[in-house]
Amino acid sequence: MASNASHAADVTLSKPIRCIVKLGGAAITCKNELEKINEENLQVVSSQLRQVMISSGKVVGMDWSKRPGSSEIYCDIDGLEDQESVDSNKFIVVHGAGSFGHFQASKSGVHKGGLEQPLVRAGFVATRISVSTLNLEIVRALAREGIPSIAMPPFSCGWSTSGRNIAAADMSVVTKTIESGFIPVLHGDAVVDDLQGCTILSGDVIIRHLAAHMKPEYVVFLTDVFGVYDRPPTEPNAILLREIAVGEDGNWSVTKPTLEDMNKQVEITVAAHDTTGGMVTKISEAAMIAKLGIDVYIVKAATTHSLKALGGELRENIPDDWLGTVVRLSNRKVQ
Amino acid sequence: MASNASHAADVTLSKPIRCIVKLGGAAITCKNELEKINEENLQVVSSQLRQVMISSGKVVGMDWSKRPGSSEIYCDIDGLEDQESVDSNKFIVVHGAGSFGHFQASKSGVHKGGLEQPLVRAGFVATRISVSTLNLEIVRALAREGIPSIAMPPFSCGWSTSGRNIAAADMSVVTKTIESGFIPVLHGDAVVDDLQGCTILSGDVIIRHLAAHMKPEYVVFLTDVFGVYDRPPTEPNAILLREIAVGEDGNWSVTKPTLEDMNKQVEITVAAHDTTGGMVTKISEAAMIAKLGIDVYIVKAATTHSLKALGGELRENIPDDWLGTVVRLSNRKVQ
Repeated sequence: MASNASHAADVTLSKPIRCIVKLGGAAITCKNELEKINEENLQVVSSQLRQVMISSGKVVGMDWSKRPGSSEIYCDIDGLEDQESVDSNKFIVVHGAGSFGHFQASKSGVHKGGLEQPLVRAGFVATRISVSTLNLEIVRALAREGIPSIAMPPFSCGWSTSGRNIAAADMSVVTKTIESGFIPVLHGDAVVDDLQGCTILSGDVIIRHLAAHMKPEYVVFLTDVFGVYDRPPTEPNAILLREIAVGEDGNWSVTKPTLEDMNKQVEITVAAHDTTGGMVTKISEAAMIAKLGIDVYIVKAATTHSLKALGGELRENIPDDWLGTVVRLSNRKVQ
Repeated sequence: MASNASHAADVTLSKPIRCIVKLGGAAITCKNELEKINEENLQVVSSQLRQVMISSGKVVGMDWSKRPGSSEIYCDIDGLEDQESVDSNKFIVVHGAGSFGHFQASKSGVHKGGLEQPLVRAGFVATRISVSTLNLEIVRALAREGIPSIAMPPFSCGWSTSGRNIAAADMSVVTKTIESGFIPVLHGDAVVDDLQGCTILSGDVIIRHLAAHMKPEYVVFLTDVFGVYDRPPTEPNAILLREIAVGEDGNWSVTKPTLEDMNKQVEITVAAHDTTGGMVTKISEAAMIAKLGIDVYIVKAATTHSLKALGGELRENIPDDWLGTVVRLSNRKVQ
């Protein structure tokens, strides 16, 4: 559906969306431990998001919950009654599942459908519980930083698929949430599929869909590596692809570093044909967004580089010392 | 809106809804401790719900999450692949907030609106976090018992109010969830209000709205006392009102015990005019549902009485030893 979207935003907002940001599962959870959040990264990511969303004013913590080991609720609202309303930049947050949900989904095969089977039905419920647990913790982390975050589970918003493609995705709740001054927090989710019963709707597909309909100024993918590399970044000599240009037809090519710089044409070609997904899938997803005229920055979470990307500083100029991957329309005029 | 609903169900379901059940906040949380679940009650309530929803088959635990203190996920799915699909009775669960959400909502005045004020906005976010925490735990408790429960927060479903009355409440997501074989779990929530910015949508209002549109066979309110009394049940000599008849015009009267039995006409009259809400509010809410021809049972959670009510055993005959309050249309034919 994203490819059919017209260039103009489908939804009417009083002020355009500044940024859609993906908190990659690998960046905010611990890969090697089931259902464990990377608290440190999440805290820094939340703090960076506050800096770029809310320009000024006292930080108003919005998670007034009991903390572990305490019997009282911490809620510092002194002087809040007199405070002026702060207009924050409009962001949408989407997060992946990381070490949440994957175990439950793969154990039961939710992505393959077959909701009438007891195992799949149980796995569907278990997957949703696991990703909801992560979602709640992310909403709380953002709220603690003063970001008025609101959980927006795609299933509950009525999103569904047909043959694994988005079939229904009502934007009205997301739009209304933003217009009310909140930051919606969506996530990869188990959803109902008209043809196969159920499937997994990934965070990346959600981002693409939101980008096509909400027309943000730019999109940021926060990951656990510096960007997209020409081969698995764990391999020695892996080269960070700094700039990828996307044509009007959706075809893309690496424009920085140039092939001459790298002298590695063969490897790039091989990588481009890998069937494991990895790099090519990532670039393809980003290219579909860039094709709409929306810059995409793929960058390591909780670094000075991610702060620059989130703040929109890269729209005009990419500093030489910035580490990350920019994917953008080849003929886009830099503003 | 409930009063305008026609008698026929607004939504088309392959099989009618058997029961809408309210898990009262007082029944599933600890009144005197902030954000504390009454684990024991919740477990019994969940077990009773399983008994009345799922007639047979092995209990398939659907909460495959890490438990506190464990690093592994418990997931007993042996033999599940071969198990036949079990068709469960269609239920909708709605829960109150109890000791969750109230602190946050009253501290900030969310019910009074004014979302542009920093304090109200923060309180709105904090309230939603608190009730979402409770909702997740209830969904998990139900899932552990093998109930395919799905969180359905009214805000995310796009429910909103206008002047504190329900303005938009799309039933399609709830219907689709039920048709897919799941049990939706809604809850009292902070929502956007077209006129005053925001408000609190109570579980009782949600129930009334759902009942009007989904036409369940009966509605059960699970509370922490045996039913509705003629005065606060903590008072000595408080009398349990066992049967309340509702006329077509919505007026109601206590039919059991009769005034002669009680010889307490004066007190009933006084109670009926109390402005504190309490009893009269409860009965009025129930009467609006009963007016639609739907029996309402108000009963103490986690008792043999609640099990009978949930199982629909009271539709034909109310045993003399059953403790609780029945509210029903005075001319309803007992089936």
